[in-house]
Amino acid sequence: MRILISGFGTVGQGFAEVLASRRAFFEKRYGKEVKIVCVMDSNTYVCDQNGLDPIELVETKQTNKKVGTQKYTDSIQIMDSVDYDLLVEVSPTNVKTGGIGLINITHALECKKDVITVNKGPLALNFDKLITLAKKNKCKLRFEGSVGGAMPIINLCHENLIGENIRSIRGIFNGTCNFILSKMDNGQPFEQALKEAQQMGYAETDPTNDVEGFDSACKVVILANSVFGRNVTFSNVDITGISSVTSEAISLAASHNMVIRLIGEVSDTKLEVSPRLIPKGHPLSITGTLNAAQIVSDLAGPITISGRGAGRLETASAMLSDLISIMDDRE
Amino acid sequence: MRILISGFGTVGQGFAEVLASRRAFFEKRYGKEVKIVCVMDSNTYVCDQNGLDPIELVETKQTNKKVGTQKYTDSIQIMDSVDYDLLVEVSPTNVKTGGIGLINITHALECKKDVITVNKGPLALNFDKLITLAKKNKCKLRFEGSVGGAMPIINLCHENLIGENIRSIRGIFNGTCNFILSKMDNGQPFEQALKEAQQMGYAETDPTNDVEGFDSACKVVILANSVFGRNVTFSNVDITGISSVTSEAISLAASHNMVIRLIGEVSDTKLEVSPRLIPKGHPLSITGTLNAAQIVSDLAGPITISGRGAGRLETASAMLSDLISIMDDRE
Repeated sequence: MRILISGFGTVGQGFAEVLASRRAFFEKRYGKEVKIVCVMDSNTYVCDQNGLDPIELVETKQTNKKVGTQKYTDSIQIMDSVDYDLLVEVSPTNVKTGGIGLINITHALECKKDVITVNKGPLALNFDKLITLAKKNKCKLRFEGSVGGAMPIINLCHENLIGENIRSIRGIFNGTCNFILSKMDNGQPFEQALKEAQQMGYAETDPTNDVEGFDSACKVVILANSVFGRNVTFSNVDITGISSVTSEAISLAASHNMVIRLIGEVSDTKLEVSPRLIPKGHPLSITGTLNAAQIVSDLAGPITISGRGAGRLETASAMLSDLISIMDDRE
Repeated sequence: MRILISGFGTVGQGFAEVLASRRAFFEKRYGKEVKIVCVMDSNTYVCDQNGLDPIELVETKQTNKKVGTQKYTDSIQIMDSVDYDLLVEVSPTNVKTGGIGLINITHALECKKDVITVNKGPLALNFDKLITLAKKNKCKLRFEGSVGGAMPIINLCHENLIGENIRSIRGIFNGTCNFILSKMDNGQPFEQALKEAQQMGYAETDPTNDVEGFDSACKVVILANSVFGRNVTFSNVDITGISSVTSEAISLAASHNMVIRLIGEVSDTKLEVSPRLIPKGHPLSITGTLNAAQIVSDLAGPITISGRGAGRLETASAMLSDLISIMDDRE
């Protein structure tokens, strides 16, 4: 299995480290190596058909701030110069145009390569086109890490619950908002909770993407398309963020033994992100930066899964499960 | 796929109904029928190699209180008279001897038949012997429904998290205890909460098996053996139930923003069931009859899954996922 990695920030580096740590696992399960044959960051690249050492790649990136010694301007040209089986596309996301991620994923699928990505932009904007292309070319497009980080929501729906009729998914898909709302439960006003989230590194300087619900909306779109077979995009989501949630609303909820959480909801007919009242003790009433999703299906009823929504190894964990599924299918 | 069902109470009937409701699914996915060729209840049986109608079987059982017109005394003799591929063993559990379930499962595996069961007794007492027999004869023994009902904890560990090193599992494995403790959170004393659980049909007249933690201990043993590869049995578990949890302890916990929950914990070295303090807002602080389990692994960190721990269709849902896995493997 020869892997080309596009994007070598936190997630790409975490994935490389996980590959190094799972060498014995791959050897035992498949009797073969998983090799990284090429890595591209934003403007440099390094390739070796004999395989690159994952740990050395990470060290080089951290020392030199770039992964390669050679510069490039056209990622397609680099991709075409490499023999690879699988593209791991983890370049910075662009939810307006799909960015370089959309270009690279499309090209890999056109070349009949399997793809693993956590890049929300291309999936939220062009899901139908990409999945249709993958099916046509009989290759896999997997994206477990794009929704809920380490929380295996997509594979849970596609594999464990394959015999169920899934009615709806409601969930907390943004850890930053959940952190802020949890702090507000303890009496902090919104602005102060946001400031603390920024100090902790959970929220960006411009927090719009998180607090206005745009990030959650991307995830809702991915679930709508992949689990419910819909053909929707970002602009179809009804979005209300948490910036207008007041301390008074939080107190009023608490007096009824409830909390307010930013919930994304998707079903055959719904596509919404908004603050909702959740009873304390309900599986979606969790505090902190966790993500959670409740899947309601006809036999199992409600099943809730929660886990860390982000993080270097946590996201790599989701990508590892995608890689194992792809390799199992090839056996 | 020809199925022999042993045990035709709530769970067996629920499974038959689910098979009927999934006829189109099986046809589409495998291009073949799933037939029930024989059903045994506690002392009658009915067989037909052409397939029995699942809904008629349920109606007969509910009308006549027995599924068959013919009586039997030796289940092995009936099993040997039928051509089947898979035994579904859902007879009443016996955690002291393993009961008829242990006899039937052992015999089916000896005859190289696949087995799906939710029968905790045989699994908690003889796991190692059964799984070794299954491996030797290259057949499958699956038991997702034996722990946590609809909550797909075992398949989550074995499939979604296959590349992870699982460090520990801590969970709420008994809905009756969780219902009682949730009522105590609201100020009810233990005896009153237990009485309400009995009135609701959640607790039995003799509640020992639930409230003393024995049922949770069975599940902890199944997880220890199946997920951690240990070879332990019921008597190896350190068990403390909830009958000694006082209203004072609950109030004291609440004053520290905590709840008390009956937690089963298993790791390479731990095997314990006991009441524990859980912070409010933690994924294991859930209320009501739900089951929940938190799996901690090296990459994903903590992942928590919760769902209905019991119920006719909920348990059948777990058995359906086992059936689909077995049929996928045969493709």
